[in-house]
Amino acid sequence: MDLWFTEKQTHGAGLTLKVRETLLRERTPFQELVILDTEQYGRMLVLDGMIQTAVGDEFIYHEMITHVAMFTHPRPRRVVVIGGGDGGVVREVLKHPTVEKVVLVEIDGRVIEACRTYLPEIAACLDDPRVEIRVEDGIRHVKEHQDAYDVAIVDSTEPVGAAVGLFSPNFYADIHDCLTDDGILVAQTESPFYNQDLIKRSYAAISALFPVTRVYLAAIPTYPSGLWSFTLGSKQEDPLEVEPQPVPEFRTRYYTTKLHHAAFCLPRFVQELLV
Amino acid sequence: MDLWFTEKQTHGAGLTLKVRETLLRERTPFQELVILDTEQYGRMLVLDGMIQTAVGDEFIYHEMITHVAMFTHPRPRRVVVIGGGDGGVVREVLKHPTVEKVVLVEIDGRVIEACRTYLPEIAACLDDPRVEIRVEDGIRHVKEHQDAYDVAIVDSTEPVGAAVGLFSPNFYADIHDCLTDDGILVAQTESPFYNQDLIKRSYAAISALFPVTRVYLAAIPTYPSGLWSFTLGSKQEDPLEVEPQPVPEFRTRYYTTKLHHAAFCLPRFVQELLV
Repeated sequence: MDLWFTEKQTHGAGLTLKVRETLLRERTPFQELVILDTEQYGRMLVLDGMIQTAVGDEFIYHEMITHVAMFTHPRPRRVVVIGGGDGGVVREVLKHPTVEKVVLVEIDGRVIEACRTYLPEIAACLDDPRVEIRVEDGIRHVKEHQDAYDVAIVDSTEPVGAAVGLFSPNFYADIHDCLTDDGILVAQTESPFYNQDLIKRSYAAISALFPVTRVYLAAIPTYPSGLWSFTLGSKQEDPLEVEPQPVPEFRTRYYTTKLHHAAFCLPRFVQELLV
Repeated sequence: MDLWFTEKQTHGAGLTLKVRETLLRERTPFQELVILDTEQYGRMLVLDGMIQTAVGDEFIYHEMITHVAMFTHPRPRRVVVIGGGDGGVVREVLKHPTVEKVVLVEIDGRVIEACRTYLPEIAACLDDPRVEIRVEDGIRHVKEHQDAYDVAIVDSTEPVGAAVGLFSPNFYADIHDCLTDDGILVAQTESPFYNQDLIKRSYAAISALFPVTRVYLAAIPTYPSGLWSFTLGSKQEDPLEVEPQPVPEFRTRYYTTKLHHAAFCLPRFVQELLV
């Protein structure tokens, strides 16, 4: 028997993947949590029917949401990750030797436990002594921690259910205040093909708060349309002005110091969303 | 009733699209030719079950396969397009005012006729007086035309059936010889996620013939994995050394003069295919 999982990414388009095995399927207090093993992309985390991360291409999303901001900040020591219960962003953050503390704020503890069990490549670094895991609401966390972090990474799910607030102007304002004077925010802001209004709204909200606001892109085949946007707000440093220093032992599979700049070079139809 | 068309892009992954209407379905001497109207991407040409071009995102492929080479050549006058029966490449080539002649060499005349009827936005320029349409084998055409073209664009289908020869070292050698002394070849070379061996082989074959060989990428949601590669071989000019001059009336939706360079900035895993 051939079993296929189809994520309807819009009303009229979807990605369909051949499934070797359904490893976990449960309802948590927040969402339906599924771990699938797929032929094309290996094991993946699926929340409410939407692919969150897959072993086969997770390196792209996790490297690109993390390293652009981390290499833009002159000396990132304290980092907060909102969402990101799979641990992939934490793994990438810890590659930066300046980091003293990473606080992972994930609202659904079952996501963390499931990823520890089934996606160990992604979740492995969650036991690092520099990591503090807090199973709580990220919106409240940033409200209660002013001037506390150098870098804030919003690794949210799609803007439905519990994650709607993670795309609101109020939340971005609280993030702004939880950051130090040279702090940097980076958020995943969905597909430039399917979520143009969201990109416009996020850009408007973040650029109202941060003097430097920039959008960049990465190609992620398991995400809707295959092209993904990130919006970065910075209080001081401009990601386009910094020259990341390549360190040989710093292994990446997608990010390069040249792509650090090239990823901000947007197709015209994306540029035109931001004017 | 909901009707969905699914292209199995690999054994384990596919794109599925809601279909409003099947406008044409026939068997030509070369392939199964279908025109669908889809909810997400509008009308599309599907050959042997594989999406070739869709009104909703065709601008990306057609602009990117065309303008990088055309802006790299100092004065492209004569251009040959191998394949490309939908007319999208011809439309983009004709935006360059130096062009005196475009020869479209498409093996399947029914593709051209179907696109004229159902995809007029794409095929419209085929009646331009600078266009010569030849319904014949592109492999034979380039063999028989030495020193004839400034730019050759290989807009082929996937490397199955009639198109296998369009990825062979012998074909690239014939293209080399059909080009003038400062000629440029560009070929679509499939997905860096799903067709890594093909990219390696094409790069090796083209770089054995052309002193300047470079690979660049574009994000195309209806193509397998959403990320697409192009390989450019040039006898003289380097696409990274030229500075395309933006002309206000030259309208594009994806290509920009900055992307002309940034598209060559490859993710590390793609870079590593080429060493």
